[in-house]
Amino acid sequence: MDAVSTLPFPASVYASRLDRARELASTAGLDGVIVGPGPDLQYLVGVEGDTIERLTALVFGPDREPTIIVPRMELAKVRATAVGELGLAVSDWVDGEDPYALVADALGRAGRVGVSDALPALHVVPLAERLAVRFELATPVLREGRMIKDAQEVAELRRAGEAIDAVHRRVPEWLRAGRTEREVAADIAEAIVSEGHRSVEFVIVGSGPHGADPHHEVSDRVIGDGEIVVVDIGGAVPSGYNSDSTRTYVVGTPSDEAAERTAVLVRAQQAAVDAVRPGATAEQVDAAARTVLAEAGLGDAFLHRTGHGIGVSVHEEPYIAPGNDLVLREGMAFSIEPGIYFAGEWGARIEDIVVVTADGCERLNVAPHSLTAV
Amino acid sequence: MDAVSTLPFPASVYASRLDRARELASTAGLDGVIVGPGPDLQYLVGVEGDTIERLTALVFGPDREPTIIVPRMELAKVRATAVGELGLAVSDWVDGEDPYALVADALGRAGRVGVSDALPALHVVPLAERLAVRFELATPVLREGRMIKDAQEVAELRRAGEAIDAVHRRVPEWLRAGRTEREVAADIAEAIVSEGHRSVEFVIVGSGPHGADPHHEVSDRVIGDGEIVVVDIGGAVPSGYNSDSTRTYVVGTPSDEAAERTAVLVRAQQAAVDAVRPGATAEQVDAAARTVLAEAGLGDAFLHRTGHGIGVSVHEEPYIAPGNDLVLREGMAFSIEPGIYFAGEWGARIEDIVVVTADGCERLNVAPHSLTAV
Repeated sequence: MDAVSTLPFPASVYASRLDRARELASTAGLDGVIVGPGPDLQYLVGVEGDTIERLTALVFGPDREPTIIVPRMELAKVRATAVGELGLAVSDWVDGEDPYALVADALGRAGRVGVSDALPALHVVPLAERLAVRFELATPVLREGRMIKDAQEVAELRRAGEAIDAVHRRVPEWLRAGRTEREVAADIAEAIVSEGHRSVEFVIVGSGPHGADPHHEVSDRVIGDGEIVVVDIGGAVPSGYNSDSTRTYVVGTPSDEAAERTAVLVRAQQAAVDAVRPGATAEQVDAAARTVLAEAGLGDAFLHRTGHGIGVSVHEEPYIAPGNDLVLREGMAFSIEPGIYFAGEWGARIEDIVVVTADGCERLNVAPHSLTAV
Repeated sequence: MDAVSTLPFPASVYASRLDRARELASTAGLDGVIVGPGPDLQYLVGVEGDTIERLTALVFGPDREPTIIVPRMELAKVRATAVGELGLAVSDWVDGEDPYALVADALGRAGRVGVSDALPALHVVPLAERLAVRFELATPVLREGRMIKDAQEVAELRRAGEAIDAVHRRVPEWLRAGRTEREVAADIAEAIVSEGHRSVEFVIVGSGPHGADPHHEVSDRVIGDGEIVVVDIGGAVPSGYNSDSTRTYVVGTPSDEAAERTAVLVRAQQAAVDAVRPGATAEQVDAAARTVLAEAGLGDAFLHRTGHGIGVSVHEEPYIAPGNDLVLREGMAFSIEPGIYFAGEWGARIEDIVVVTADGCERLNVAPHSLTAV
C-alpha cells in the first residue's frame, strides 16, 4: 500500500545497474530494451508497481540514454525513485495521447529490440506493430544483474530470512487442532508484518490431505489432531526483497510413517544445500535432493522442481530444476524446497533460501528443519 | 488467499461465455485465441490467479474446442473451476517439458492468432516464435463479453457497491486529526473485509497536499485539522467482482474555497452520471463532467479521464475518456470519478460505479456525495 517507498539503495547503485544493463544489451546485440513495470523496473530504477492499462516503460540501449515514459499522473511517484535522483530523461503523457510514439522517439532507429518478461501483450502487441520489429526477450540482459546479488542485496535477503524465521518460530502459538487453516493463516499474516515485513506475499497452510497439493493455499478446513501441516510463507521487507520459507508441522504425534518420511525429506533438503557451490549446476542441486528421495522410494512423491531464485520478486532466475545446466555463481540466491506429496493423505515440504558463497552457500533460514510438533 | 473458490455462477454461464467468445473469434477472423491467467481467464472459465513463469493458457478457436494447458501442480485447482464442470480438454505438463508445444498442438494450423491482454512477454515472445505468427490482441473477442454485464454480474457489482458504501459510512469512526494516513487505512482495510469483501484491492488515503496526487496511496503523514482527505477504496466480493468508490472528507471545517470547489465537483460528477444512457458515447460522459469543471474555472485541475469499466478486474473496458467514441450499451458498468487537484495544497475526487440501464443508469454507490465533515 506504500505509494512512495524510500529507495533502499543509494542512487549510485541504480546507476551502475543501468550501466551494466546497457553493456549487456550491447553484448547481446540489442539496439534497444523496453522495460515495463515489474521486478526488472524495480531493480533498475526503484519504480515499483504493476503494469496498468496506461503505459509506463523504461527505454534504453547501448547508444541510448535511459528515458522513462510515464503517465503524467504517475510522475510524482516516479520522480521519487532513482529516475529523479539520477536525473533520467522523462517523457510524460496524458490520456488521449499516444505513449507508443514516445517509445518510438526514445528508441530511435532500432533493428533488434528486447522487452522485459513482465510487459503484457496489451502493450507488447501494439508496440511491436508501431516499431515494426519482432521483439526478443530482454531476459539475458536483465536477469544477469538480478541473478547475482551484491552484498547489500544479500543483507536485505538475510533480513527477510530472519523476519520469516521469527514467524515460523511463533507458529506453535497458533497452530492447533480445532482451528481452521484460515484462522491460523490470519494470525501468521499479522505476524509476517509485525516481525518486519512491509507486505504479506503469500500464506499457505495445508493440513492433512490439503498438504498433498503443492499449490494449496488456505481453506476453511478444520485442522485435526495428529495431522501433518505444511506452512509456506513469505513477504517483502521494506526494501522490496522477499522471504520465502516452508516448515512442516504435526499437531500432536505423527504416525511412524510420517515421522520416517519427513526425516528423509529433511535429509534430501540438506543434500541439496550441501551440493550448492560455485561451479555446480542448477540441475545437480536438484538431483541431489531427488536422489535421496528416490533411494528411499519417494521419488514419485516429489512433484516439482527443487527451487527458484528470489530477490525483488518471489520467483525469478535461477530455477533449480531438472535440465537446467546453468552454472551457479557466487551471489546467486534461491530456494531449496523439496517436498513429498501423497494424494488424499498428506504432504510435507522444507524450504530455505540460500546464497551461493565462494566455497558453498549461506543458509538464510535456520528455524528448526525437522517435523515440528505443536 | 483462497485457493479454490466455489464458482460464482452455474457452469452453463461459462459455457455460454465460451460459445460467445468462439463466435466473436470467428467474426474477427481469428483462427485461434490464447488466453493466459488474468481477468479474461477468470471470466471465461473461473480460473483465478496471476501468470507465473509456468504457462497456464486456455486455447480455443472457431473450429477448435477449448483446451487448457496447465502445469500439473495446478491441475487440481483448475479442475475445481468450470474447466472441470464443463469437461474441457486439459493438457498438463511438468517442469522440464515444453508447454509451448502443447499450445501448438491445441491450436493446429492457425494463421491469425489473438492473445489476451494480460499474457506477459515471457510467454508472448517464445509462443510467437514457436507458432511462427505475429500475434494480434484478442481484445475485440474478449472484451465484448466482459463489457456487457448480465443480471447476475450486475447483482454481484451491486453487492460490492453496498459493501464499500458500508465502509465509507464508517470512515468517520477512524478519520481524525493526529492520526496518520496509514493508521486510518489499516482500519479501512479491516472494514473492507468485515463488510463483505474477500480481499482488499486498494486503499488510498490522501490528506492535504497528498490529495493533490491522484495516485497517492498512503503514507505516514499525520492528518491535520481542517484538511481535506480523499478516500478511494475497493475490494473484491467472494464472486471476484470488484467495488471502487471515492469520497472526500474534511477534518473539521473546510475553507470557503474548498467548500465551493468540492460542491462544483459534486455537480460535475452528477452531470456525468446524468449523461449516461444507451446511445451516448464514452467521451460524451467524460465531457459532461469536464464541462462543469471548466465552466467553474477548474478545467485545468482535472488531470485524468472520468472513469473506467469494472468487473472481475478493477480497471477494464469501457474507458470513459476524451476521444473514446465507444457507444454505451445496457449492461456496461464503469466508474464516474472526476477529481480536482491543486498541487502542494489539496485535492478531491468523487467516484461511483454506474451500470447502464434501458433508459439511463443505476448508481451502485449511494453513500453521501458531498464533502463529509468528520
